[in-house]
Amino acid sequence: MGQPIPRTAVIGAGISGLTTGKMLGDYGVPYTTFESSDRIGGNWAFGNPNGHSSAYRSLHIDTSKHRLSFKDFPMPDSYPTFPHHTDIKAYLDDYAAAFGLLENIEFGNGVTHAARSADGRWHIEDQAGAQREFDFLVVANGHHWDPRYADFPGEFSGRRIHSHDYIDPRTPLDLSGQRILIVGIGNSAADIAVELSSKSLDNTVTLSTRSSAWIVPKYIAGKPGDAYWRTTPHLPLGLQRKALQMMMPLMGTDPTLYGLPPANHKLFEAHPTQSVELPLRLGSGDVIPKPNVSRLDGATVHFEDGTSGDFDVIVYATGYNITFPFFDPEFVSAPGNQIRLYKRIFRPGIDNLAFVGFAQSVPTLFPFVECQSRVVAAYAVGRYALPDVGEMEQIIDKDQELHNGHTTDSPRHTQQVDYFVYEHDIRTRELPTGAKRAESRGFPTPTGGRSEPRLLRSRRN
Amino acid sequence: MGQPIPRTAVIGAGISGLTTGKMLGDYGVPYTTFESSDRIGGNWAFGNPNGHSSAYRSLHIDTSKHRLSFKDFPMPDSYPTFPHHTDIKAYLDDYAAAFGLLENIEFGNGVTHAARSADGRWHIEDQAGAQREFDFLVVANGHHWDPRYADFPGEFSGRRIHSHDYIDPRTPLDLSGQRILIVGIGNSAADIAVELSSKSLDNTVTLSTRSSAWIVPKYIAGKPGDAYWRTTPHLPLGLQRKALQMMMPLMGTDPTLYGLPPANHKLFEAHPTQSVELPLRLGSGDVIPKPNVSRLDGATVHFEDGTSGDFDVIVYATGYNITFPFFDPEFVSAPGNQIRLYKRIFRPGIDNLAFVGFAQSVPTLFPFVECQSRVVAAYAVGRYALPDVGEMEQIIDKDQELHNGHTTDSPRHTQQVDYFVYEHDIRTRELPTGAKRAESRGFPTPTGGRSEPRLLRSRRN
Repeated sequence: MGQPIPRTAVIGAGISGLTTGKMLGDYGVPYTTFESSDRIGGNWAFGNPNGHSSAYRSLHIDTSKHRLSFKDFPMPDSYPTFPHHTDIKAYLDDYAAAFGLLENIEFGNGVTHAARSADGRWHIEDQAGAQREFDFLVVANGHHWDPRYADFPGEFSGRRIHSHDYIDPRTPLDLSGQRILIVGIGNSAADIAVELSSKSLDNTVTLSTRSSAWIVPKYIAGKPGDAYWRTTPHLPLGLQRKALQMMMPLMGTDPTLYGLPPANHKLFEAHPTQSVELPLRLGSGDVIPKPNVSRLDGATVHFEDGTSGDFDVIVYATGYNITFPFFDPEFVSAPGNQIRLYKRIFRPGIDNLAFVGFAQSVPTLFPFVECQSRVVAAYAVGRYALPDVGEMEQIIDKDQELHNGHTTDSPRHTQQVDYFVYEHDIRTRELPTGAKRAESRGFPTPTGGRSEPRLLRSRRN
Repeated sequence: MGQPIPRTAVIGAGISGLTTGKMLGDYGVPYTTFESSDRIGGNWAFGNPNGHSSAYRSLHIDTSKHRLSFKDFPMPDSYPTFPHHTDIKAYLDDYAAAFGLLENIEFGNGVTHAARSADGRWHIEDQAGAQREFDFLVVANGHHWDPRYADFPGEFSGRRIHSHDYIDPRTPLDLSGQRILIVGIGNSAADIAVELSSKSLDNTVTLSTRSSAWIVPKYIAGKPGDAYWRTTPHLPLGLQRKALQMMMPLMGTDPTLYGLPPANHKLFEAHPTQSVELPLRLGSGDVIPKPNVSRLDGATVHFEDGTSGDFDVIVYATGYNITFPFFDPEFVSAPGNQIRLYKRIFRPGIDNLAFVGFAQSVPTLFPFVECQSRVVAAYAVGRYALPDVGEMEQIIDKDQELHNGHTTDSPRHTQQVDYFVYEHDIRTRELPTGAKRAESRGFPTPTGGRSEPRLLRSRRN
């Protein structure tokens, strides 16, 4: 391939890396995907030998299949409404096969180090120890694999496990006949609390949460809950959330109804927890609600309401860090999961680096990464150009305000994106505007310092 | 005790026998309760050594505690909204202790035979082999202990179990790694299907139903579903059901939404199945819906839609027979669970026999048996008298039409009673009218053929 189109490296072959590969292929961009595992799927490859899957045996996705499907690859009719992780993996395998994505993936060969040289080129060291050079780097290594623990004062003398390592009630720990404290209230916390509170396991299960969360049913009136979630870009998002917030008491979403602390944010300002079972378990006395932990002391855990209890095991379902182990930390990192990216993709000032999949897109993730991949591929071939750095910084602030509004800045909430608003913005505003910018600048491609302006009109029809 | 107040025998010390004992005691009626087990609670005594409990380890009652509480003995504040069976047993123990009910119960001494002699007296043979005589007999032996099986053509070569014997996924059968067919769609079927389809058990679970059922969530808008169920006796019940039927699509109650056959009755004409989890499991592909079984053939089960599957185990969650093992069948029996009783209590023509608890009262059972017990006790002391046999027969038909309407006459549905309508009828019409009848006839007490009219005005203050 010639110089004008950048030789591109993609880190990771999970959903973000796969869609990126698909789009780069569609736009004729030569690329190599580095995947540390022997398989695609990342988080959705249950038992992934690279340790990057957080899937537990019972995991079903919380998005209905119609909302979840890639725009260009619908899920099979035979799939249940809320597919199991094995269904998702099979779907991704089919997707990769259908678009010939496997041939560009180097399996068992992740990126150990990626550095941008003075001339703007990427110098990549791979797992095999080879030095590789690329013009453009797409980071798609996911954000659900590096466990984040809550940092409580004191020491706990029992066993502890992160939800990342939880497989089922027997694996990796035998969780029967135990006094279990689950910390967190995301979907994993809810699912694990429900599973471990099964009477047949003879556990006592307590759930502690600091931020609390709104609890949304997976089914509303017999339809997937997300079938009702359709924000429009033509009305202010805050107003639409307000309307939903007013209706939602009807759905029993308020955690205080079940003895949990009040949510420290408004409904839909952060990813709600989707569980029909957790409220029932709380209401049945099978899961005991507690506020945040104040202190650990041997087997005893003290809570902020002054109560305490003795536990054998703490399950930390406290989320994940955004980590880029291949970057020098002073180059790019995401302390507190905060990372300033233009349209959640581009790092202002580094014009040959893109990120895909670093957002908590609600109500659906797969079409979100597909949308981001399209921008990345258009950018790679010069059909989309970025604004200048100052404008990007301004828009990052505006977008953050739009999507996150008044949310607290907890690591869980900073990545919240409304999919419909985001996708509409990209499709109707950002891509056309970026195309005009590209045209006016002569279709630059992101090849670090060495790119030459170039016309791609022949490709555009 | 003297002759005028009837010496009364009560069969069973479950909820019906206990409330009967409480009311008889309140009205000063001498009574003996025969209980075949060594403990009270019947169905709610998990692992009851008399084999009459159908409770499984994970069972929570489907009625919220406020709806469930006896009118004169509220459940403790500490109880969860939907108490576990151990909570119910503890509550019944407290109830028995608070009202001194244990002293009238002969434990480990059920009734083996009860016959009414020509002079109208009851001749009872007890488990100890003794012959006992009573003036009045109250049957409270329950209707959730004699398993009813579906009668399918052909033979099944795998194992079979009735939900009555199901305890948990390991007891009495090891139900992991199995192909399981659950037949039925009542609360037990739903609970067992949910429990056995837990991914950690590695089963495949199929659910087959003939009649299907409307599926009602235990929580609606964060309140127990039954908090919304408040029919009024001042409007026709059919009309109120129609209103609820019109609203209920909002709740996702239609079984066809989840791949189940359509219900063969209208919503609330039969006891709906209360489960928030079953729709989710069906929608997640973890429980596979099937219509009725057409034929068994070795390991293969054929369904009415022409499909078939191979199974290791069939769980029959097909309900219970109403059985009176102590009566000669030609005296009283309930073929197809049909038994004609005046106000579901009295057998026209047998004036010293009463039944308590033989109805599927929705949304709550405990206050229903309490209400029936009050009638029985008032009857025992002559403060309530029955109409003549012809009038009773007419009213039985009218009540059946009122409560059951157009329901099919499957064994599951014939006992359906609307609690609010029933209780209002008893309290505001039946008891006052029965008191007037008693007054006009000189307060007869049910002592078979030998009772003498007698005034009880001194007791009436």
